[in-house]
Amino acid sequence: MRRAVAGPEIERLIQLLARVPGLGPRSARRAALHLIKKRESLMAPLAGAMDEVLAKITTCQVCGNLDVRSPCSVCADETREAGILVVVADVADLWALERSGAVSARYHVLGGTLSPLDGIGPDDLNVASLLARVNREGTGEVLLALGATVDGQTTAHYITELLRETGVKVTRLAHGVPVGGELDYLDEGTLAAAIRARTSL
Amino acid sequence: MRRAVAGPEIERLIQLLARVPGLGPRSARRAALHLIKKRESLMAPLAGAMDEVLAKITTCQVCGNLDVRSPCSVCADETREAGILVVVADVADLWALERSGAVSARYHVLGGTLSPLDGIGPDDLNVASLLARVNREGTGEVLLALGATVDGQTTAHYITELLRETGVKVTRLAHGVPVGGELDYLDEGTLAAAIRARTSL
Repeated sequence: MRRAVAGPEIERLIQLLARVPGLGPRSARRAALHLIKKRESLMAPLAGAMDEVLAKITTCQVCGNLDVRSPCSVCADETREAGILVVVADVADLWALERSGAVSARYHVLGGTLSPLDGIGPDDLNVASLLARVNREGTGEVLLALGATVDGQTTAHYITELLRETGVKVTRLAHGVPVGGELDYLDEGTLAAAIRARTSL
Repeated sequence: MRRAVAGPEIERLIQLLARVPGLGPRSARRAALHLIKKRESLMAPLAGAMDEVLAKITTCQVCGNLDVRSPCSVCADETREAGILVVVADVADLWALERSGAVSARYHVLGGTLSPLDGIGPDDLNVASLLARVNREGTGEVLLALGATVDGQTTAHYITELLRETGVKVTRLAHGVPVGGELDYLDEGTLAAAIRARTSL
């Protein structure tokens, strides 16, 4: 028989925590208890940080990133290379690329990928603003950092065609063997791409 | 080179989320982005639930459980068996036993175990209140649900001696093979305990 361990307020906290990615129903309970025990040093600051982000969060009018200001921290960063514009499908991809530290450029967040099956067309994505931006900023290179999926590649193809008239250089991420990856765990498509794009030593 | 993906408010949210058990630095970033995207349906209610718990949370004056009221939801539950008092080291243990649904009794939270090496003696635990409670409530059985560790067993032994004069029946959890456990992964101590406590079929 299942009973409430604690009052409805705590049960509600547990239920909401269970919806955070990375936490399940069981770890949400553990997380809630930890937050309650560390209420002064962790839960109060965390609730405060959420309130502050909730009050200030906005979508960057330039690139579509989520931040507490617009233009966002990335667009406002004067030290970034101005010539390259990295096109990503989602803010999560922008964050992942930033985490890698592999590129110091500005971004353009499409807000998804073209997906005819799901009824997502060009008008549902930030592609018009991308074209306007490339024309306005005199971008030298557009790097399409889209997933190697059907939708990602369809989107890449569409944007390449769209940007053709601007004369901007359009590049995409390389396909190949993931660093640290074992060959016998890789699919044939990746292996074929890695062979086609082989480099001299 | 590592740069801030977003403003300091969001970075602070990520750092605080990374301190929640079950989330690491990487999943905290993913959790933060999810919370930001679901700010109306998840982050705002979650921040509100935290604020509510923060405002109301208290330690139950009867048993030591954490709840938004005192006596806590467990102590106030009239449907529980009154004769049995389950002694646990920590609120986490109380929650774990409640999750199992195996017992419908009231609890007493010691707030730790005796640990001479760490300088934790009887005065640091809620043992005086346990003795008073057993005398006051006319408890029929005290079930010591303490860990099968040196400190847990030391504590169990101490409480058994303490309660001897009251004449209350003192029991402890059975040792044995965990349900679903493979014999060849078990330690000798558990196997020996399981053989000693073998039951007829």
